[in-house]
Amino acid sequence: MSRNSPGLAVVLLSGGLDSAVALYVAREKGYGVHALSFDYGQRHRKELDCAEMIACKSGSQWHRIRLEFPWKGSSLLDKNQAVPQEFSGGKIPSTYVPGRNIVFLSFAASLAETLGAGTVFIGANEIDYSGYPDCRKDFLQAFQTALNLGTRTGVEARGIRIEAPLIRKTKAGIIRLGMKLGVPFEFTWSCYNGRTRACGTCDSCRFRAAGFARAGIEDPAL
Amino acid sequence: MSRNSPGLAVVLLSGGLDSAVALYVAREKGYGVHALSFDYGQRHRKELDCAEMIACKSGSQWHRIRLEFPWKGSSLLDKNQAVPQEFSGGKIPSTYVPGRNIVFLSFAASLAETLGAGTVFIGANEIDYSGYPDCRKDFLQAFQTALNLGTRTGVEARGIRIEAPLIRKTKAGIIRLGMKLGVPFEFTWSCYNGRTRACGTCDSCRFRAAGFARAGIEDPAL
Repeated sequence: MSRNSPGLAVVLLSGGLDSAVALYVAREKGYGVHALSFDYGQRHRKELDCAEMIACKSGSQWHRIRLEFPWKGSSLLDKNQAVPQEFSGGKIPSTYVPGRNIVFLSFAASLAETLGAGTVFIGANEIDYSGYPDCRKDFLQAFQTALNLGTRTGVEARGIRIEAPLIRKTKAGIIRLGMKLGVPFEFTWSCYNGRTRACGTCDSCRFRAAGFARAGIEDPAL
Repeated sequence: MSRNSPGLAVVLLSGGLDSAVALYVAREKGYGVHALSFDYGQRHRKELDCAEMIACKSGSQWHRIRLEFPWKGSSLLDKNQAVPQEFSGGKIPSTYVPGRNIVFLSFAASLAETLGAGTVFIGANEIDYSGYPDCRKDFLQAFQTALNLGTRTGVEARGIRIEAPLIRKTKAGIIRLGMKLGVPFEFTWSCYNGRTRACGTCDSCRFRAAGFARAGIEDPAL
């Protein structure tokens, strides 16, 4: 990295559209990127394969952490529960995974501190989103305060900054930004159902389709 | 549980002295306890064996989570580094593990939300302690705010309360409280070096020995 490089960043990379754009924002800003993905019992492996490919395409290091954790009660993890096929209308939907981003951000911060990275990027978005409380700016700011107080680098040095560059963007805006940055959208996966083709009807597929439509761009993953 | 029971609690249980006392405080208050321990590459397994025994003796459920995580840079995890044999004098010592309690509390909160438990107990203490930033009250309060904003139960219901009943106690005070509550101290392990007998010279051994001496009690683990 050059002298003017902002240094290293850890980017939470799910394999979905938003986190891929967040990664390319970090690259654009000159960070040396360590992408971090979790194998936590998702309904399907497709998004992990996508994450690995996006990390590779972008020239980033990729870390995968297996989490052996008894998360239950989320339709996203329980193959016996159906994933809802419509917008949840402001309520937190059944695909909510208890504390997921709290756990993921904790690992990202810990990895950042281990690597000496000063920034963690997360593709969280609270505009065209499913209503998960751990995707909101208020939560991220509170978590930032906890990191400042609870880590060695927060107490003794400059700390670890959480960046959520997409937090107030629309899905169409995120897609336009990603196109500009060269995000390989054909390797991003949004569908909760994880078949060989996206189902087109789950929350996540609908947000994606509406975003591409509003951006006036054809979805290269279809 | 009776009608007057405060419900379920998740207790972070390392196998050391403080977390064992925190667990017995939770039991004394009437909680149904789920003890949570982590296998994260400690220098030795002794404290995990102690945690399992304490959970069993106290009649609590025990959960162990294996964390596959590339934590480096801590002498507590790296067998090639020596554990310091003296007090660190106000500095954060080399035994600090990046973001450890942040990750542990995140899992505890996630497990609590999954189980419908309203409280997480942690044996953190900022009086007779090694200076880890993630053991301090300020950090715990900030993390509490993040939990209130970032979990479904924090947004829709009463939330998950973090209790740190030992936070302002001296080690002698913790030991006296533990004796009163019947904590089986003979099954707690504090030494960083994890031989068959405690080394007696590491930070953690010294805090423990001084605590028992000041409490006027013989350490049943010796």
